[in-house]
Amino acid sequence: MQIRPLQAGVLVVLLSLLFSVVVLAGNRQSDNNSNSSSGHKLVPPADKKPIPVAFVLTEGATVIDFAGPWEVFQDAGGPDGVDHFQLFTVGSSKQPIRASGGLTITPDYSFDDAPPARIIVIPAQRGDPKLADWLRQRDKEAEVVMSVCTGAFQLGKAGLLDGKQATTHHNFYDQLEKAFPKARLVKNQRYVQSDDVIYTAGGLTSGTDLALHILVEYYGREFAQKTADYMEYQSKSWL
Amino acid sequence: MQIRPLQAGVLVVLLSLLFSVVVLAGNRQSDNNSNSSSGHKLVPPADKKPIPVAFVLTEGATVIDFAGPWEVFQDAGGPDGVDHFQLFTVGSSKQPIRASGGLTITPDYSFDDAPPARIIVIPAQRGDPKLADWLRQRDKEAEVVMSVCTGAFQLGKAGLLDGKQATTHHNFYDQLEKAFPKARLVKNQRYVQSDDVIYTAGGLTSGTDLALHILVEYYGREFAQKTADYMEYQSKSWL
Repeated sequence: MQIRPLQAGVLVVLLSLLFSVVVLAGNRQSDNNSNSSSGHKLVPPADKKPIPVAFVLTEGATVIDFAGPWEVFQDAGGPDGVDHFQLFTVGSSKQPIRASGGLTITPDYSFDDAPPARIIVIPAQRGDPKLADWLRQRDKEAEVVMSVCTGAFQLGKAGLLDGKQATTHHNFYDQLEKAFPKARLVKNQRYVQSDDVIYTAGGLTSGTDLALHILVEYYGREFAQKTADYMEYQSKSWL
Repeated sequence: MQIRPLQAGVLVVLLSLLFSVVVLAGNRQSDNNSNSSSGHKLVPPADKKPIPVAFVLTEGATVIDFAGPWEVFQDAGGPDGVDHFQLFTVGSSKQPIRASGGLTITPDYSFDDAPPARIIVIPAQRGDPKLADWLRQRDKEAEVVMSVCTGAFQLGKAGLLDGKQATTHHNFYDQLEKAFPKARLVKNQRYVQSDDVIYTAGGLTSGTDLALHILVEYYGREFAQKTADYMEYQSKSWL
């Protein structure tokens, strides 16, 4: 089949359109994840010890918000037999809490005695009067502080979203804007990087994509893909 | 631009190919989920009380295996303010267990005192000498007994997969075939319905798709889609 001038013209127009869409989509992504796409990289520990990850769990913590990232960090690298991350939980006290749906979980540590962590995960939860101070302190020491779903409100209460972009569960966009007018709400993104340390994910399952993105920043894309494959995870929104 | 005979011919061939691919893909799905696509339906309770769901949790239970279905049943219907399911955990005893990654969870009930459940969820876990008998008993009473990941091995040990199709995590296909030669292993499916009551999911995150599929069987596709949307869940494999 010969390609005639008119057909070639149509083809060029279509390819140009496709190219524009791809480039524009890429730009939107990099605007909203500006640091992550500008060469920002997290460096694995030189001693190859597992990276400590603290999961903040107070009453009503939403199960998938922490369970998604929990599984990602636990399975990091796939079945290579190495623990790349060491996971623990931190609550108001070491008394059991009721997570969402009534799951009874006992935190490993309280805010008073939790060891240092390079990554802090904050799912949706009721919170604690001590939490804002604790987060402000930990934000200075950690490499990653990541909220999932309305966990972003805990960062907001600590003043950690002021002047920064952030996201949350889609049903809580308005509430986030009202509660924290200094934050710049970003809608319809799986996650948003707010500054060098803080990241906020959208609702519920989006925390899994943010955790995979953190793997990319520490260990690269192939490593994160191995993890996703091991988890039989199908979303591509972390790429 | 006029469409000439040659172009029309090419178009017809392409459309035919596309049609064949779609039809073949549909057939494969219905072969492997034969009961689910043959009009098998689960009936919500007439009294509209929440459907009880028991999650079996012994040592080493894999977090995302139970957390995915937990969140689906907890969020069922989206933000409609109704609890469609009532969730509880069952273990060897009411002493805390360490789930995968070291998460400390206290079961609500033991195998000796767990109340009846219409749905039983079995994530990957170490198991218990009492579990096989318990599962055989519960299988007679429940509407849905669903394994996630290598939770299928607990069903196999109870003899509940003999003569039936089943799946598991992709790294454990060979082991499942060796351990339970009477089961018919199905590969590369998010989930497989084994008989009128038993369903087996693939690895880790695939349990979420199976739980959404169970929602479809009780409450229909629109209801399940509302749940997935609320969860900001992106996989379409439950459809």
